[in-house]
Amino acid sequence: MAVGGEVRLVALEGLPLIRPGDDLGTLIAAALARAGLALQDGDVLVLAQKIVSKAEGRLVRLADVTPSAEAQRLAQEVRKDARLVELILSESRRIVRARPHVLIVEHRLGLIMANAGIDQSNVEDGFALLLPENPDASAEKLRARLAPEGARVGVVINDSFGRPWRRGTTGVAIGAAGLPALVDRRGEADLYGRPLQVTMIAFADEIAASASLLMGPAAEARPVVLLRGLGWSAADSPAAELIRPENEDLFR
Amino acid sequence: MAVGGEVRLVALEGLPLIRPGDDLGTLIAAALARAGLALQDGDVLVLAQKIVSKAEGRLVRLADVTPSAEAQRLAQEVRKDARLVELILSESRRIVRARPHVLIVEHRLGLIMANAGIDQSNVEDGFALLLPENPDASAEKLRARLAPEGARVGVVINDSFGRPWRRGTTGVAIGAAGLPALVDRRGEADLYGRPLQVTMIAFADEIAASASLLMGPAAEARPVVLLRGLGWSAADSPAAELIRPENEDLFR
Repeated sequence: MAVGGEVRLVALEGLPLIRPGDDLGTLIAAALARAGLALQDGDVLVLAQKIVSKAEGRLVRLADVTPSAEAQRLAQEVRKDARLVELILSESRRIVRARPHVLIVEHRLGLIMANAGIDQSNVEDGFALLLPENPDASAEKLRARLAPEGARVGVVINDSFGRPWRRGTTGVAIGAAGLPALVDRRGEADLYGRPLQVTMIAFADEIAASASLLMGPAAEARPVVLLRGLGWSAADSPAAELIRPENEDLFR
Repeated sequence: MAVGGEVRLVALEGLPLIRPGDDLGTLIAAALARAGLALQDGDVLVLAQKIVSKAEGRLVRLADVTPSAEAQRLAQEVRKDARLVELILSESRRIVRARPHVLIVEHRLGLIMANAGIDQSNVEDGFALLLPENPDASAEKLRARLAPEGARVGVVINDSFGRPWRRGTTGVAIGAAGLPALVDRRGEADLYGRPLQVTMIAFADEIAASASLLMGPAAEARPVVLLRGLGWSAADSPAAELIRPENEDLFR
Protein backbone atom coordinates (compact mmCIF):
# COMPACT_ATOMS: atom_id res chain seq x y z
CA MET A 1 0.00 0.00 0.00
CA ALA A 2 3.10 2.15 0.24
CA VAL A 3 5.17 2.47 -2.92
CA GLY A 4 8.50 2.86 -1.18
CA GLY A 5 9.38 2.43 2.45
CA GLU A 6 8.18 5.85 3.53
CA VAL A 7 4.92 7.77 3.80
CA ARG A 8 4.72 11.44 4.79
CA LEU A 9 1.72 13.02 6.48
CA VAL A 10 1.67 16.79 6.11
CA ALA A 11 -0.98 19.07 7.63
CA LEU A 12 -1.90 22.01 5.41
CA GLU A 13 -1.29 25.24 7.26
CA GLY A 14 -3.10 28.54 7.05
CA LEU A 15 -6.59 27.47 6.05
CA PRO A 16 -9.19 29.93 7.32
CA LEU A 17 -12.09 28.86 9.54
CA ILE A 18 -14.53 27.46 7.00
CA ARG A 19 -17.95 29.11 6.55
CA PRO A 20 -21.06 28.07 4.63
CA GLY A 21 -20.55 28.56 0.93
CA ASP A 22 -16.75 28.55 1.06
CA ASP A 23 -15.11 26.90 -1.94
CA LEU A 24 -12.97 24.25 -0.25
CA GLY A 25 -11.24 23.25 -3.48
CA THR A 26 -9.95 26.75 -4.09
CA LEU A 27 -8.91 27.23 -0.45
CA ILE A 28 -7.02 23.92 -0.43
CA ALA A 29 -5.37 24.63 -3.79
CA ALA A 30 -4.14 27.95 -2.37
CA ALA A 31 -2.85 26.30 0.83
CA LEU A 32 -1.01 23.68 -1.22
CA ALA A 33 0.55 26.38 -3.37
CA ARG A 34 1.64 28.40 -0.31
CA ALA A 35 3.28 25.24 1.10
CA GLY A 36 5.05 24.61 -2.20
CA LEU A 37 3.21 21.28 -2.55
CA ALA A 38 2.05 20.26 -6.02
CA LEU A 39 -0.23 17.22 -5.95
CA GLN A 40 1.26 14.15 -7.63
CA ASP A 41 0.32 10.58 -8.46
CA GLY A 42 -0.41 8.61 -5.30
CA ASP A 43 -1.14 11.61 -3.09
CA VAL A 44 -4.16 11.43 -0.81
CA LEU A 45 -5.85 14.44 0.78
CA VAL A 46 -7.82 13.80 3.96
CA LEU A 47 -10.40 16.39 4.98
CA ALA A 48 -12.12 16.56 8.34
CA GLN A 49 -15.86 16.07 7.97
CA LYS A 50 -16.48 19.30 9.84
CA ILE A 51 -15.05 21.58 7.20
CA VAL A 52 -16.84 19.76 4.40
CA SER A 53 -20.14 19.99 6.27
CA LYS A 54 -19.61 23.67 7.04
CA ALA A 55 -18.69 24.54 3.46
CA GLU A 56 -21.80 22.68 2.29
CA GLY A 57 -24.00 24.68 4.63
CA ARG A 58 -24.98 21.78 6.88
CA LEU A 59 -25.20 24.00 9.98
CA VAL A 60 -28.65 24.03 11.53
CA ARG A 61 -29.85 26.61 14.07
CA LEU A 62 -31.40 24.63 16.94
CA ALA A 63 -33.93 27.43 17.54
CA ASP A 64 -35.38 26.66 14.10
CA VAL A 65 -36.02 22.97 14.95
CA THR A 66 -39.43 21.85 16.26
CA PRO A 67 -39.12 18.46 17.93
CA SER A 68 -41.76 15.85 17.21
CA ALA A 69 -43.53 13.97 20.00
CA GLU A 70 -41.26 10.98 19.32
CA ALA A 71 -38.15 13.17 19.59
CA GLN A 72 -39.41 14.64 22.86
CA ARG A 73 -40.03 11.19 24.36
CA LEU A 74 -36.65 9.89 23.21
CA ALA A 75 -34.88 13.05 24.40
CA GLN A 76 -36.16 12.38 27.91
CA GLU A 77 -34.93 8.79 27.74
CA VAL A 78 -31.44 9.70 26.52
CA ARG A 79 -31.30 13.06 28.38
CA LYS A 80 -30.44 15.14 25.34
CA ASP A 81 -31.89 18.33 23.84
CA ALA A 82 -35.14 17.38 22.07
CA ARG A 83 -34.27 19.61 19.11
CA LEU A 84 -30.96 17.77 18.72
CA VAL A 85 -32.77 14.42 18.97
CA GLU A 86 -35.18 15.61 16.28
CA LEU A 87 -32.21 16.32 13.99
CA ILE A 88 -30.66 12.94 14.82
CA LEU A 89 -33.89 11.12 13.97
CA SER A 90 -34.27 13.08 10.74
CA GLU A 91 -30.80 11.92 9.67
CA SER A 92 -31.32 8.27 10.67
CA ARG A 93 -32.89 5.08 9.42
CA ARG A 94 -33.29 3.48 12.84
CA ILE A 95 -32.17 3.58 16.44
CA VAL A 96 -29.52 0.98 17.31
CA ARG A 97 -29.08 1.72 21.04
CA ALA A 98 -30.68 4.31 23.29
CA ARG A 99 -29.55 4.75 26.90
CA PRO A 100 -29.14 7.81 29.14
CA HIS A 101 -26.53 10.01 27.40
CA VAL A 102 -26.16 7.49 24.55
CA LEU A 103 -28.00 7.51 21.22
CA ILE A 104 -26.50 5.27 18.55
CA VAL A 105 -28.31 5.15 15.22
CA GLU A 106 -27.97 3.86 11.72
CA HIS A 107 -27.42 7.03 9.73
CA ARG A 108 -29.26 7.30 6.40
CA LEU A 109 -25.86 6.67 4.75
CA GLY A 110 -25.67 3.31 6.57
CA LEU A 111 -23.05 4.40 9.09
CA ILE A 112 -23.65 3.13 12.62
CA MET A 113 -22.68 6.05 14.82
CA ALA A 114 -23.49 8.11 17.88
CA ASN A 115 -25.90 11.02 17.36
CA ALA A 116 -26.01 10.48 13.58
CA GLY A 117 -22.62 12.19 13.44
CA ILE A 118 -24.19 15.50 14.45
CA ASP A 119 -21.61 17.57 16.20
CA GLN A 120 -21.70 20.57 18.46
CA SER A 121 -17.95 20.84 19.12
CA ASN A 122 -16.26 23.57 17.11
CA VAL A 123 -19.66 24.92 16.14
CA GLU A 124 -21.08 28.21 17.36
CA ASP A 125 -23.43 28.01 20.33
CA GLY A 126 -26.98 27.20 19.34
CA PHE A 127 -26.01 25.42 16.14
CA ALA A 128 -25.53 21.78 15.18
CA LEU A 129 -23.57 20.44 12.23
CA LEU A 130 -24.91 17.54 10.14
CA LEU A 131 -22.82 15.18 8.00
CA PRO A 132 -22.50 16.11 4.32
CA GLU A 133 -25.48 15.02 2.23
CA ASN A 134 -23.32 12.62 0.21
CA PRO A 135 -19.70 12.44 1.42
CA ASP A 136 -18.55 10.19 -1.44
CA ALA A 137 -19.85 12.77 -3.91
CA SER A 138 -18.21 15.57 -1.92
CA ALA A 139 -14.89 13.71 -2.09
CA GLU A 140 -15.25 13.12 -5.82
CA LYS A 141 -16.03 16.78 -6.45
CA LEU A 142 -12.86 17.83 -4.60
CA ARG A 143 -10.82 15.17 -6.38
CA ALA A 144 -11.99 16.39 -9.79
CA ARG A 145 -11.16 19.96 -8.77
CA LEU A 146 -7.70 19.26 -7.32
CA ALA A 147 -6.16 16.24 -9.08
CA PRO A 148 -3.76 17.16 -11.87
CA GLU A 149 -4.56 15.76 -15.30
CA GLY A 150 -3.66 12.07 -15.46
CA ALA A 151 -2.59 11.74 -11.82
CA ARG A 152 -4.31 9.36 -9.42
CA VAL A 153 -5.05 11.50 -6.38
CA GLY A 154 -7.28 10.22 -3.60
CA VAL A 155 -9.58 12.28 -1.40
CA VAL A 156 -10.90 10.95 1.92
CA ILE A 157 -13.35 12.65 4.29
CA ASN A 158 -12.89 11.44 7.84
CA ASP A 159 -14.74 11.62 11.12
CA SER A 160 -14.12 10.25 14.63
CA PHE A 161 -16.11 7.16 15.55
CA GLY A 162 -16.53 5.21 18.74
CA ARG A 163 -16.50 1.44 18.40
CA PRO A 164 -17.93 -1.65 20.03
CA TRP A 165 -15.53 -3.55 22.28
CA ARG A 166 -12.80 -0.90 22.29
CA ARG A 167 -12.48 2.40 24.12
CA GLY A 168 -11.67 5.69 22.45
CA THR A 169 -12.44 7.03 19.00
CA THR A 170 -10.49 6.56 15.78
CA GLY A 171 -10.63 8.33 12.44
CA VAL A 172 -12.93 6.58 9.96
CA ALA A 173 -13.60 7.29 6.27
CA ILE A 174 -17.12 8.54 5.56
CA GLY A 175 -16.31 9.66 2.02
CA ALA A 176 -13.70 8.64 -0.54
CA ALA A 177 -12.83 9.17 -4.19
CA GLY A 178 -9.91 8.40 -6.46
CA LEU A 179 -8.71 5.36 -4.49
CA PRO A 180 -10.00 1.94 -3.40
CA ALA A 181 -11.69 2.54 -0.03
CA LEU A 182 -11.77 -1.25 0.34
CA VAL A 183 -8.95 -3.38 -1.10
CA ASP A 184 -9.75 -6.97 -1.93
CA ARG A 185 -6.67 -9.17 -1.81
CA ARG A 186 -8.39 -12.49 -2.33
CA GLY A 187 -6.21 -14.68 -4.49
CA GLU A 188 -2.91 -13.20 -3.30
CA ALA A 189 -0.35 -15.40 -1.57
CA ASP A 190 1.60 -15.02 1.65
CA LEU A 191 5.37 -15.39 1.99
CA TYR A 192 4.99 -19.20 1.98
CA GLY A 193 2.76 -19.23 -1.10
CA ARG A 194 -0.44 -19.92 0.87
CA PRO A 195 -3.59 -17.85 0.39
CA LEU A 196 -3.71 -14.75 2.55
CA GLN A 197 -6.16 -15.06 5.43
CA VAL A 198 -6.79 -11.35 5.77
CA THR A 199 -8.16 -10.50 2.39
CA MET A 200 -10.17 -7.30 2.65
CA ILE A 201 -8.35 -4.21 3.83
CA ALA A 202 -10.17 -1.05 4.89
CA PHE A 203 -7.59 1.12 3.13
CA ALA A 204 -9.53 4.38 3.45
CA ASP A 205 -10.18 3.79 7.16
CA GLU A 206 -6.46 3.29 7.80
CA ILE A 207 -5.79 6.50 5.87
CA ALA A 208 -8.50 8.29 7.87
CA ALA A 209 -7.04 7.11 11.19
CA SER A 210 -3.52 8.15 10.25
CA ALA A 211 -4.68 11.66 9.33
CA SER A 212 -6.50 11.92 12.66
CA LEU A 213 -3.09 11.69 14.36
CA LEU A 214 -2.31 15.12 12.92
CA MET A 215 -5.76 16.66 13.10
CA GLY A 216 -6.25 15.96 16.78
CA PRO A 217 -9.68 15.76 18.34
CA ALA A 218 -10.75 19.31 17.51
CA ALA A 219 -10.06 18.48 13.84
CA GLU A 220 -10.30 22.09 12.84
CA ALA A 221 -6.92 23.55 13.66
CA ARG A 222 -5.47 21.11 11.10
CA PRO A 223 -8.46 19.95 9.06
CA VAL A 224 -6.60 18.88 5.89
CA VAL A 225 -3.75 16.38 5.80
CA LEU A 226 -1.78 15.26 2.76
CA LEU A 227 -0.45 11.68 2.62
CA ARG A 228 2.40 11.17 0.18
CA GLY A 229 4.05 7.84 -0.63
CA LEU A 230 1.03 5.56 -0.86
CA GLY A 231 0.30 3.44 -3.90
CA TRP A 232 -2.53 1.20 -5.01
CA SER A 233 -3.48 -0.90 -8.00
CA ALA A 234 -7.08 -1.86 -7.17
CA ALA A 235 -9.96 -0.02 -8.83
CA ASP A 236 -11.46 2.97 -7.04
CA SER A 237 -14.29 2.27 -4.62
CA PRO A 238 -16.24 4.76 -2.48
CA ALA A 239 -16.47 4.82 1.31
CA ALA A 240 -19.98 3.40 0.97
CA GLU A 241 -18.22 0.08 0.18
CA LEU A 242 -16.87 0.07 3.74
CA ILE A 243 -20.34 -0.26 5.20
CA ARG A 244 -21.04 -3.89 5.99
CA PRO A 245 -24.42 -4.93 4.65
CA GLU A 246 -26.82 -5.98 7.39
CA ASN A 247 -27.00 -9.54 6.06
CA GLU A 248 -23.19 -9.91 6.44
CA ASP A 249 -23.17 -8.41 9.93
CA LEU A 250 -23.19 -10.59 13.05
CA PHE A 251 -23.42 -7.66 15.44
CA ARG A 252 -26.56 -5.62 14.67
CA MET B 1 -0.91 14.55 18.76
CA ALA B 2 1.62 15.71 16.22
CA VAL B 3 4.24 18.17 17.44
CA GLY B 4 4.65 20.00 14.16
CA GLY B 5 2.64 19.75 10.99
CA GLU B 6 4.35 16.63 9.70
CA VAL B 7 4.65 12.97 10.64
CA ARG B 8 6.91 10.54 8.81
CA LEU B 9 6.29 6.79 8.62
CA VAL B 10 9.41 4.84 7.72
CA ALA B 11 9.52 1.07 7.24
CA LEU B 12 12.72 -0.53 8.52
CA GLU B 13 14.41 -2.39 5.73
CA GLY B 14 16.54 -5.50 5.83
CA LEU B 15 15.13 -7.34 8.84
CA PRO B 16 15.54 -11.11 8.47
CA LEU B 17 12.58 -13.50 8.66
CA ILE B 18 12.10 -13.84 12.41
CA ARG B 19 12.55 -17.24 14.07
CA PRO B 20 11.79 -18.50 17.59
CA GLY B 21 14.35 -17.17 20.04
CA ASP B 22 15.46 -14.24 17.89
CA ASP B 23 16.33 -11.11 19.85
CA LEU B 24 14.03 -8.55 18.22
CA GLY B 25 15.53 -5.64 20.12
CA THR B 26 19.01 -6.33 18.76
CA LEU B 27 17.73 -6.94 15.22
CA ILE B 28 15.75 -3.68 15.25
CA ALA B 29 18.63 -1.70 16.72
CA ALA B 30 20.84 -2.99 13.91
CA ALA B 31 18.24 -2.12 11.24
CA LEU B 32 17.88 1.38 12.67
CA ALA B 33 21.64 1.84 12.63
CA ARG B 34 21.90 0.61 9.03
CA ALA B 35 19.21 3.14 8.04
CA GLY B 36 21.06 5.91 9.86
CA LEU B 37 18.07 6.39 12.19
CA ALA B 38 18.79 7.15 15.84
CA LEU B 39 15.64 6.98 17.99
CA GLN B 40 14.66 10.33 19.47
CA ASP B 41 12.03 11.80 21.77
CA GLY B 42 8.54 11.30 20.34
CA ASP B 43 9.45 8.39 18.05
CA VAL B 44 7.13 5.41 17.98
CA LEU B 45 8.07 1.96 16.69
CA VAL B 46 5.23 -0.25 15.50
CA LEU B 47 5.87 -3.98 15.27
CA ALA B 48 3.65 -6.49 13.53
CA GLN B 49 2.28 -9.03 16.01
CA LYS B 50 3.58 -11.86 13.87
CA ILE B 51 7.25 -11.12 14.40
CA VAL B 52 6.78 -10.63 18.15
CA SER B 53 4.90 -13.93 18.39
CA LYS B 54 7.51 -15.74 16.34
CA ALA B 55 10.42 -14.36 18.34
CA GLU B 56 8.63 -15.41 21.53
CA GLY B 57 8.21 -18.96 20.28
CA ARG B 58 4.41 -18.87 19.98
CA LEU B 59 4.41 -21.22 16.99
CA VAL B 60 2.49 -24.44 17.64
CA ARG B 61 2.74 -27.57 15.51
CA LEU B 62 -0.83 -28.66 14.75
CA ALA B 63 0.24 -32.32 14.76
CA ASP B 64 1.02 -31.93 18.46
CA VAL B 65 -2.51 -30.71 19.32
CA THR B 66 -5.18 -33.15 20.52
CA PRO B 67 -8.63 -31.62 20.13
CA SER B 68 -11.12 -32.04 22.97
CA ALA B 69 -14.64 -33.30 22.35
CA GLU B 70 -15.88 -29.70 22.59
CA ALA B 71 -13.34 -28.55 20.00
CA GLN B 72 -14.37 -31.39 17.68
CA ARG B 73 -18.05 -30.49 17.97
CA LEU B 74 -17.38 -26.78 17.42
CA ALA B 75 -15.00 -27.50 14.53
CA GLN B 76 -17.83 -29.25 12.71
CA GLU B 77 -20.13 -26.30 13.33
CA VAL B 78 -17.65 -23.68 12.07
CA ARG B 79 -16.00 -25.98 9.48
CA LYS B 80 -12.46 -25.46 10.70
CA ASP B 81 -9.62 -27.84 11.64
CA ALA B 82 -10.45 -29.29 15.10
CA ARG B 83 -6.83 -28.85 16.22
CA LEU B 84 -7.00 -25.15 15.30
CA VAL B 85 -10.32 -24.84 17.16
CA GLU B 86 -8.70 -26.49 20.19
CA LEU B 87 -5.97 -23.84 20.13
CA ILE B 88 -8.54 -21.06 19.72
CA LEU B 89 -10.53 -22.31 22.71
CA SER B 90 -7.38 -22.64 24.80
CA GLU B 91 -6.62 -18.96 24.12
CA SER B 92 -10.16 -17.72 24.79
CA ARG B 93 -12.47 -16.82 27.63
CA ARG B 94 -15.67 -17.36 25.70
CA ILE B 95 -17.21 -17.71 22.26
CA VAL B 96 -18.86 -14.52 20.97
CA ARG B 97 -20.15 -15.77 17.59
CA ALA B 98 -19.87 -19.17 15.89
CA ARG B 99 -21.11 -19.67 12.34
CA PRO B 100 -19.82 -21.71 9.40
CA HIS B 101 -16.33 -20.32 8.62
CA VAL B 102 -16.63 -17.74 11.44
CA LEU B 103 -15.40 -18.12 15.02
CA ILE B 104 -15.23 -14.88 17.00
CA VAL B 105 -14.10 -15.15 20.60
CA GLU B 106 -13.10 -13.07 23.56
CA HIS B 107 -9.37 -13.73 23.79
CA ARG B 108 -7.96 -14.24 27.29
CA LEU B 109 -6.47 -10.71 26.94
CA GLY B 110 -10.01 -9.33 26.49
CA LEU B 111 -9.70 -8.69 22.76
CA ILE B 112 -12.79 -9.62 20.74
CA MET B 113 -11.41 -11.13 17.57
CA ALA B 114 -11.70 -13.85 14.97
CA ASN B 115 -9.92 -17.14 15.76
CA ALA B 116 -8.33 -15.71 18.94
CA GLY B 117 -5.85 -13.97 16.65
CA ILE B 118 -4.33 -17.30 15.67
CA ASP B 119 -2.82 -16.97 12.25
CA GLN B 120 -1.73 -19.40 9.59
CA SER B 121 -0.72 -16.84 6.96
CA ASN B 122 3.03 -16.33 6.72
CA VAL B 123 3.55 -19.40 8.89
CA GLU B 124 5.01 -22.67 7.67
CA ASP B 125 2.52 -25.35 6.70
CA GLY B 126 1.27 -27.37 9.66
CA PHE B 127 1.92 -24.60 12.19
CA ALA B 128 -0.24 -21.96 13.82
CA LEU B 129 0.93 -18.76 15.48
CA LEU B 130 -0.62 -17.57 18.76
CA LEU B 131 -0.63 -13.99 20.03
CA PRO B 132 2.18 -13.06 22.43
CA GLU B 133 1.53 -14.13 26.03
CA ASN B 134 1.43 -10.48 27.18
CA PRO B 135 1.78 -7.96 24.34
CA ASP B 136 1.95 -4.93 26.66
CA ALA B 137 4.88 -6.55 28.46
CA SER B 138 6.51 -7.42 25.13
CA ALA B 139 6.20 -3.78 24.05
CA GLU B 140 7.66 -2.53 27.34
CA LYS B 141 10.59 -4.93 27.07
CA LEU B 142 11.41 -3.61 23.60
CA ARG B 143 10.95 -0.01 24.71
CA ALA B 144 13.38 -0.50 27.60
CA ARG B 145 15.87 -2.11 25.22
CA LEU B 146 15.64 0.50 22.45
CA ALA B 147 14.73 3.90 23.96
CA PRO B 148 17.71 6.18 24.51
CA GLU B 149 18.23 7.39 28.09
CA GLY B 150 15.74 10.15 28.90
CA ALA B 151 13.83 9.98 25.58
CA ARG B 152 10.14 9.15 25.42
CA VAL B 153 9.91 6.46 22.78
CA GLY B 154 6.70 4.52 22.22
CA VAL B 155 6.39 0.91 21.10
CA VAL B 156 3.14 -0.46 19.66
CA ILE B 157 2.41 -4.05 18.61
CA ASN B 158 -0.32 -4.17 15.97
CA ASP B 159 -2.54 -6.76 14.38
CA SER B 160 -5.29 -6.68 11.74
CA PHE B 161 -8.84 -6.85 13.09
CA GLY B 162 -12.20 -7.15 11.48
CA ARG B 163 -14.95 -4.98 12.93
CA PRO B 164 -18.69 -4.94 13.40
CA TRP B 165 -20.64 -2.76 10.95
CA ARG B 166 -17.70 -2.08 8.64
CA ARG B 167 -16.02 -4.19 5.98
CA GLY B 168 -12.29 -4.80 5.81
CA THR B 169 -9.64 -5.01 8.47
CA THR B 170 -7.65 -2.21 10.07
CA GLY B 171 -4.51 -2.22 12.17
CA VAL B 172 -5.26 -2.26 15.91
CA ALA B 173 -2.92 -1.99 18.91
CA ILE B 174 -2.68 -5.17 20.97
CA GLY B 175 0.38 -4.02 22.93
CA ALA B 176 1.78 -0.60 23.84
CA ALA B 177 4.46 0.95 26.03
CA GLY B 178 6.01 4.37 26.45
CA LEU B 179 2.93 6.31 25.26
CA PRO B 180 -0.72 6.79 26.19
CA ALA B 181 -2.61 4.08 24.29
CA LEU B 182 -5.79 5.95 25.27
CA VAL B 183 -5.76 9.74 25.54
CA ASP B 184 -8.37 11.33 27.77
CA ARG B 185 -9.16 14.89 26.70
CA ARG B 186 -12.02 15.49 29.11
CA GLY B 187 -11.86 19.07 30.31
CA GLU B 188 -10.30 20.44 27.13
CA ALA B 189 -12.13 23.08 25.11
CA ASP B 190 -12.96 23.35 21.43
CA LEU B 191 -12.23 26.39 19.24
CA TYR B 192 -15.32 28.13 20.68
CA GLY B 193 -14.38 27.41 24.29
CA ARG B 194 -16.99 24.67 24.72
CA PRO B 195 -16.14 21.24 26.14
CA LEU B 196 -14.93 18.78 23.51
CA GLN B 197 -17.51 16.12 22.69
CA VAL B 198 -15.01 13.51 21.58
CA THR B 199 -12.95 13.08 24.69
CA MET B 200 -11.23 9.70 24.55
CA ILE B 201 -8.89 9.08 21.64
CA ALA B 202 -7.58 5.62 20.80
CA PHE B 203 -4.12 7.03 20.07
CA ALA B 204 -2.38 3.66 19.83
CA ASP B 205 -5.05 2.28 17.49
CA GLU B 206 -4.61 5.25 15.14
CA ILE B 207 -0.85 4.66 15.24
CA ALA B 208 -1.40 0.93 14.59
CA ALA B 209 -3.65 1.66 11.60
CA SER B 210 -1.22 4.13 10.08
CA ALA B 211 1.65 1.63 10.30
CA SER B 212 -0.52 -1.00 8.62
CA LEU B 213 -0.55 1.23 5.52
CA LEU B 214 3.15 0.45 5.12
CA MET B 215 3.16 -3.12 6.37
CA GLY B 216 0.47 -4.30 3.97
CA PRO B 217 -1.59 -7.40 4.67
CA ALA B 218 1.29 -9.85 4.75
CA ALA B 219 2.82 -7.69 7.50
CA GLU B 220 6.08 -9.51 7.29
CA ALA B 221 7.87 -7.93 4.36
CA ARG B 222 7.80 -4.65 6.36
CA PRO B 223 7.06 -5.71 9.92
CA VAL B 224 8.53 -2.68 11.72
CA VAL B 225 7.52 0.94 11.04
CA LEU B 226 8.93 4.05 12.70
CA LEU B 227 6.64 7.07 13.23
CA ARG B 228 8.46 10.35 13.72
CA GLY B 229 6.83 13.68 14.54
CA LEU B 230 4.22 12.63 17.10
CA GLY B 231 3.98 14.18 20.53
CA TRP B 232 1.94 13.54 23.64
CA SER B 233 1.63 14.89 27.14
CA ALA B 234 -0.70 12.34 28.76
CA ALA B 235 0.71 9.63 31.01
CA ASP B 236 1.60 6.28 29.49
CA SER B 237 -1.15 3.68 29.37
CA PRO B 238 -0.98 0.14 27.98
CA ALA B 239 -3.06 -1.29 25.12
CA ALA B 240 -5.11 -3.15 27.74
CA GLU B 241 -6.71 0.25 28.45
CA LEU B 242 -8.20 0.17 24.96
CA ILE B 243 -10.35 -2.83 25.81
CA ARG B 244 -13.83 -1.66 26.73
CA PRO B 245 -14.98 -3.31 29.93
CA GLU B 246 -18.04 -5.50 29.44
CA ASN B 247 -20.15 -3.29 31.71
CA GLU B 248 -19.44 -0.26 29.47
CA ASP B 249 -20.16 -2.16 26.27
CA LEU B 250 -23.55 -2.00 24.56
CA PHE B 251 -22.63 -4.53 21.88
CA ARG B 252 -21.63 -7.81 23.53
